[in-house]
Amino acid sequence: MSTQNLHNLQVRLAARPRGLPRESDFELVEEPCQPPAEGEVLVKVAYLSLDPAARGWMDDRRSYIPPVAIGEVMRGLAAGEVVESRHPRFQAGDRVTGALGWQRFARVAARELTALPATASYLDALGPLGMVGMTAYFGLLDVGRPQENDTVLVSGGAGAVGSLVGQIAKLHGCRAVGIAGSDDKCRWLTEELGLDGAINYKTAGDLDAAIRDACPDGVDVYFDNVGGAVLDAALRRINRGARVVICGAISQYNATEPIAGPSNYLMLLVQRARMEGFVVLDYVPRFAEALGPMARWLAEGKLKARFDVVDGLENAPRALLKLFDGSNTGKLVVRVGEE
Amino acid sequence: MSTQNLHNLQVRLAARPRGLPRESDFELVEEPCQPPAEGEVLVKVAYLSLDPAARGWMDDRRSYIPPVAIGEVMRGLAAGEVVESRHPRFQAGDRVTGALGWQRFARVAARELTALPATASYLDALGPLGMVGMTAYFGLLDVGRPQENDTVLVSGGAGAVGSLVGQIAKLHGCRAVGIAGSDDKCRWLTEELGLDGAINYKTAGDLDAAIRDACPDGVDVYFDNVGGAVLDAALRRINRGARVVICGAISQYNATEPIAGPSNYLMLLVQRARMEGFVVLDYVPRFAEALGPMARWLAEGKLKARFDVVDGLENAPRALLKLFDGSNTGKLVVRVGEE
Repeated sequence: MSTQNLHNLQVRLAARPRGLPRESDFELVEEPCQPPAEGEVLVKVAYLSLDPAARGWMDDRRSYIPPVAIGEVMRGLAAGEVVESRHPRFQAGDRVTGALGWQRFARVAARELTALPATASYLDALGPLGMVGMTAYFGLLDVGRPQENDTVLVSGGAGAVGSLVGQIAKLHGCRAVGIAGSDDKCRWLTEELGLDGAINYKTAGDLDAAIRDACPDGVDVYFDNVGGAVLDAALRRINRGARVVICGAISQYNATEPIAGPSNYLMLLVQRARMEGFVVLDYVPRFAEALGPMARWLAEGKLKARFDVVDGLENAPRALLKLFDGSNTGKLVVRVGEE
Repeated sequence: MSTQNLHNLQVRLAARPRGLPRESDFELVEEPCQPPAEGEVLVKVAYLSLDPAARGWMDDRRSYIPPVAIGEVMRGLAAGEVVESRHPRFQAGDRVTGALGWQRFARVAARELTALPATASYLDALGPLGMVGMTAYFGLLDVGRPQENDTVLVSGGAGAVGSLVGQIAKLHGCRAVGIAGSDDKCRWLTEELGLDGAINYKTAGDLDAAIRDACPDGVDVYFDNVGGAVLDAALRRINRGARVVICGAISQYNATEPIAGPSNYLMLLVQRARMEGFVVLDYVPRFAEALGPMARWLAEGKLKARFDVVDGLENAPRALLKLFDGSNTGKLVVRVGEE
């Protein structure tokens, strides 16, 4: 395959969204592929990961990494196959993952790529064995520090990270309860993933009471992906010395008003509890210690992952919105497909 | 002194306040003293401590201790002299401290009393060597875990706890900055207590900018006594791995609406930081480890405490309000005085 004949397709950030992103905030650009420079690798993207964090990267705001610039290719994790390599560590045909961006072909420095283990599929690499899995693993175990028999409550419970958090909690001998946005999702959590309880926050009515019923011994670890009213309700039920893990706040990412802080944060004082944020990138040096158990649990069928696959890179902007209306179940990815 | 001839004066809770307490929420009751039962001690109260926490105890709400019941003597720490003892550990004339309540004479179980060290005054026992001092010491050092050269920012900086936090931070080699509500208080912090900076939040205008100017290297430990807008502004300036210590939220204690949660709590995620609450009562078994250094610093003049002394138990209800309009400087106490 000669690089010269390849055409790249890119989704670039065209404007900073206010509230929910619109398709006009992105632009689709087609251009010839540039060959890799010395030390670089050209990767043909197979699957692009769509994650809630992407919304944050579109805002011009102080965060843990700089925002995507206007006119820049939209940032995103992806997995694909090496087409051409100018670095000794990779050769054509290798399967790799990294922050390849929303594009068909990515030209990136070899140091930014990770080779996929032979047994891992592209989807595994964007799910339980990728950033999503590492987020669940280290966020729950390192920040949340659950003890056996603790009650672990997780919001976004049927989401990519949340569904792994609930399962890892069970594998650690905890009682696990998920909060999700549909009865189907709740059934999936209890019937297929083996969680001890699930709450449909959209129909629960009194969320406080629903959490009290589902967590009769209170909440020792609350893993929060959503923020807002759900975080507030969970805070009401925390136990002495509880750990509240702040992984994300998807209910607030499109807010055009100042976001709602947790009105019940003084429960941290009443219960001598802690609320702590983390960023999975800090754990890169420790990924190996998680990949062993995660791969083993996957192989043994003890860890299940579900994917919501959308076809076509050009559909990525619209697909991203599924994260915010909750219409995806499990990990949302785009199959980038052929030229 | 015969117990039979003693008349007690009590301030009892008459109604649960809505918003700021009013004098009608309390009732003043005079009645004969009851002699102590076996194992009990009768104490003549010399000084009563007025603390922001008292406001919380007046609400019928889940907290770290049960609320004061309607008709019950108002709860409060106090110090005084033993009048009659029916427990071998105490004898008439001993100076003691404990939760004696808002009353002239307290009949309490001996196990609830602590003897004052010979060198400690009643005021010391209600200030730096009492709960207030223990709150500052363990809240800062055990929860906040400051390292040398860290920047420690404290709100309610000229208050009973906050003014000790700032000084202990300096004694630990930190840069210390206080937030307070008047220029006089700010001058006291920098000129007399030796803090590196002070911010008058009432006149600062842009509090974010004021904190940025006073803490050019960001904030490593934020010790919060006030909540609300000040907490939100402080969160904006926290450094990577910062510790936010939730000691209280005096700006919210009289709120009649749901309290305002910290809108900037996602800075905990961005900065991999933690927000943690604590209750000083948990540290009772460790008080001895704090009393040594605190008493030494006091004796050496390295720790200064200021008191705002109000005369007369009957004035306690009105005096409590000084905590909420910020008109006290340092530790607020009531000199209970003679029968």
